[in-house]
Amino acid sequence: MVKVAVLGHGTVGSGVVELLTKNHKSITDRAGQEIEVKYILDIRDFPDTPYHDKFTKDFQVILEDPEISIVAEVMGGLSPAFEFVRSLLEHGKSVVTSNKELVAAKGAQLLQTAKAHNVNFFFEASVGGGIPIIRPMHQCLAANEISEVAGILNGTTNYILTKMIEEQMPFDEALHQAQELGYAERDPSADVDGHDACRKICILASLAFGHHVYPHTVHTEGISGLDLNDVAYADSWGGVIKLIGRAKKLADGKMVATVFPAILEKHSQLANINDVFNGILIRGDATGDVVFYGRGAGKFPTASAVVADIIDIAKASCTSKSLSWDDSPENHMADYKTAPLRFYIRLSASQAAEARQEIDRLFGEVEYLARSGQPENELALVTGEMTEYQLEEKLSQLKSGTLRSMIRVLDY
Amino acid sequence: MVKVAVLGHGTVGSGVVELLTKNHKSITDRAGQEIEVKYILDIRDFPDTPYHDKFTKDFQVILEDPEISIVAEVMGGLSPAFEFVRSLLEHGKSVVTSNKELVAAKGAQLLQTAKAHNVNFFFEASVGGGIPIIRPMHQCLAANEISEVAGILNGTTNYILTKMIEEQMPFDEALHQAQELGYAERDPSADVDGHDACRKICILASLAFGHHVYPHTVHTEGISGLDLNDVAYADSWGGVIKLIGRAKKLADGKMVATVFPAILEKHSQLANINDVFNGILIRGDATGDVVFYGRGAGKFPTASAVVADIIDIAKASCTSKSLSWDDSPENHMADYKTAPLRFYIRLSASQAAEARQEIDRLFGEVEYLARSGQPENELALVTGEMTEYQLEEKLSQLKSGTLRSMIRVLDY
Repeated sequence: MVKVAVLGHGTVGSGVVELLTKNHKSITDRAGQEIEVKYILDIRDFPDTPYHDKFTKDFQVILEDPEISIVAEVMGGLSPAFEFVRSLLEHGKSVVTSNKELVAAKGAQLLQTAKAHNVNFFFEASVGGGIPIIRPMHQCLAANEISEVAGILNGTTNYILTKMIEEQMPFDEALHQAQELGYAERDPSADVDGHDACRKICILASLAFGHHVYPHTVHTEGISGLDLNDVAYADSWGGVIKLIGRAKKLADGKMVATVFPAILEKHSQLANINDVFNGILIRGDATGDVVFYGRGAGKFPTASAVVADIIDIAKASCTSKSLSWDDSPENHMADYKTAPLRFYIRLSASQAAEARQEIDRLFGEVEYLARSGQPENELALVTGEMTEYQLEEKLSQLKSGTLRSMIRVLDY
Repeated sequence: MVKVAVLGHGTVGSGVVELLTKNHKSITDRAGQEIEVKYILDIRDFPDTPYHDKFTKDFQVILEDPEISIVAEVMGGLSPAFEFVRSLLEHGKSVVTSNKELVAAKGAQLLQTAKAHNVNFFFEASVGGGIPIIRPMHQCLAANEISEVAGILNGTTNYILTKMIEEQMPFDEALHQAQELGYAERDPSADVDGHDACRKICILASLAFGHHVYPHTVHTEGISGLDLNDVAYADSWGGVIKLIGRAKKLADGKMVATVFPAILEKHSQLANINDVFNGILIRGDATGDVVFYGRGAGKFPTASAVVADIIDIAKASCTSKSLSWDDSPENHMADYKTAPLRFYIRLSASQAAEARQEIDRLFGEVEYLARSGQPENELALVTGEMTEYQLEEKLSQLKSGTLRSMIRVLDY
C-alpha cells in the first residue's frame, strides 16, 4: 500500500483523485500495490465530494506524516508550490507535478534536491497533457543525439490558429470563441502571448540537452499580431501558420530556444495538428523525426499523466537518476538572431515594380507570393536562408517598401 | 562495465554495433556505465569491419560466458532465434530483440521465462522501428483503460498506398518502385499480404489487453487487390485507403484483432501519415487518442530502439515486472465479423437505377459516391454501421448488382 497526498483540488487535482478511484483495480495491478489518497490539500472546502474526509488545509500534516511517500503537486503557480515541493523532497518524499511554471523556473534545483535525498521528482504532466512525452523523449535520448525539439505546445493558440486558417476567422473572434468554449482564460495572455509554450519548451530543451533553459532566455512571441492576409499568403505558398516552441543545438554546441508563430509546409507532420491538439517532434541522429500527438490539456488527459508518474514511483524500487539535468552554464544559449532561417515578409510599396527590383538586388533569389484580393501596393515573399541580423540589415536598406509583417519559416 | 553480445550482423545488427560505438560517450552517461560489445554472432565472415575480432560462429561461447549479461537478438526468424533466446533467459541473461515474428509467436512464453529467471525480455524495436511505442504504451496503460490500438504498422505498404493515392499509380507499378528503392523485398508477400503488420498488432494488442494474441487468430488481408477506382471513390468521399492493424475490446470483454486496408477520413491523424512512415494510435479512457509517428523501419531507427532497451537494462537495478502479459485464455478473441463497422462497396449493375432501388430497400440509408469517368453500370457507396455478417446477408440477397470490391471504413 502506497499512501499519497494531492496538493490542490482544481481541475487536474480532482481528475487525479477520480482516476485513482475509477481505475483502482488496474492501477493496483500495474503498480504492484494499492495506491490510496490519504490527503487532499486545498484552502477551499468541498463538503459534497465522496472523499471530503481526506481534505486538509494544513501542509505540515502532509509533510510530517511518515506514511506519505508520494505527493502530487497540482496547484500550479510558483509560490507556495516551490517551497512545498522543496520541503517534501527534503523530507524524503517523491513528488510528481503538472506544474510547468515550477519545472521551467526551478527544475534543475528540484531535480538536484531529489537526487540528494534519493527520491524522485517527475513531471510528465507538465508538457503535452496526456501525451507521454517526457519519458519517451528520455528513451529516445538514450541511444540518440537529439539535435532539435519542436512542438505545438499550447492547445488554445492552436485552436485559434486553426479557426483563422480553416475559416478565415479574425484573431479576436477566434479568441472569443475559444473563451466561450472554455479553451481560453478570461485573461488569455499566458496562452496567446506564448508564455505557456515558452515554459514547455524550456522543460523539453532542458531534458534534451542536459542543461536548464530558463524562460527569460527564450525569445517568445505570441499570435495576437497575426493578420488573415498573412494566413492567406502562407496558404498560397502551401503552408500554415502554427505557434512553434523550438530548441535547437547549433554547430558550435550552443543552443537557441524560441517561441514564435512560424510557417510550416502543409504536408509536414506538425502542420496537420489542429484544434486543441498538441504535437511534439524530436529530431534524433538515429531515429530521424519522431512525433507525439494528442490532447495537450484537459482534466483527465493531464491527470492520467500525473497518475502514470505516481504508479511509476510506486512500482520502482529504484530512483531514476538519468531523468535529470544540470543547471545552465554561462553562455550556453546563443542569440536566436544568429541562427539561419528563411523568412516570410509582407511589405507595402507605392511603386511595387521598383520595390521588386530593389528586393531582388538586396535579397537575391526570393519567392513572391500572391493572394486573392491582393492590393497593387502589397508585396509578399519568402526569402532564402539567412540570419535574422542579415534580414534586419537588408530591410534597413530597403527604401521603396515598408515592412508590414515578418514570419519565420521552419522545416517541420 | 556491461558486456553485451549481438546475435546477427545484418542491417539492424550492424546498426546496433555502430550506434554503440558512435554515441559511446552519451550512452555511457545515460546508462551510468560503459556498454561494450564482446561478441557478434554470425555464420558469415566480416574480415573488413573494425571489430572483426568480436565475431564468433559459436552460440555456446556467448551462452556460457558469465561476463555477458545482455544479449541483443537481431537475427530475425523463429528458429534458431527462439531456442537461443530461451536458453539465454534460462541462463540468467537479459535479452532485447527487434524480432517481431518471435515476439508475436512466443512472447507470452518468453516473458514468463524471463520473469522466472529474474531477467528482462524487452522488444521496443519489434514494433514501429525507432518510434518509442512499447514503453510509452505501457506508460499510457498505467493510468488508462485502453479500448483500442490501431496503426499504420508497415512502411512498405504505406509507401505503395501513398503512390496509389497521390499519383494514381497502379499497385504493380508502385510495388516495383518500392522494390527499386529497397523498401520492398524481392518477395514482397510478408509486407503486401499484411503478415508483417499482423505480427505487430499482435504485440501491441497483447500488451494493451494483457493476454497474448497469436497471429493465426488475426484476420489479415493485404493490399494487392486494391484498385485505383476504389482509391478514386475514397477520395471523392473525403477519405484515403490505409492498411490498418487494429485491436479493439468489445463490450463483452472479448477482443477483435484485424489487419486490412481501410478507408479513413482525410483529416484524421492516421490518414496524414504517408510514405514509409508508421503511426500508432492508442485510445484510452483518460487520455483520449494519442498518436506516435516516425520511421517504422531502417537500420538506425531500429538499432536505436534496440540500444535504448540495452541502456534501460544496464541502468536499472530492478527488472520490469509489469511490461508483460499472460498467455491467451480460451475464447478471448471474438469473430471480427461480429463487430459493427461501416462499409464501402463497389458494384457493377447493368440496370443501375434498379440496383439503387434494391440497395436502398436492403441497406436503408447509404451514401452514394461518384468518380470522374464512372461507367454507367458502376455503383459505389458507403453503408451505415452493421456487422460484416449483416453485410454479407444483404449482399447475398442483392439480385441486380455484382460486388466488385468491399473496403471497411474506420474512424481514426
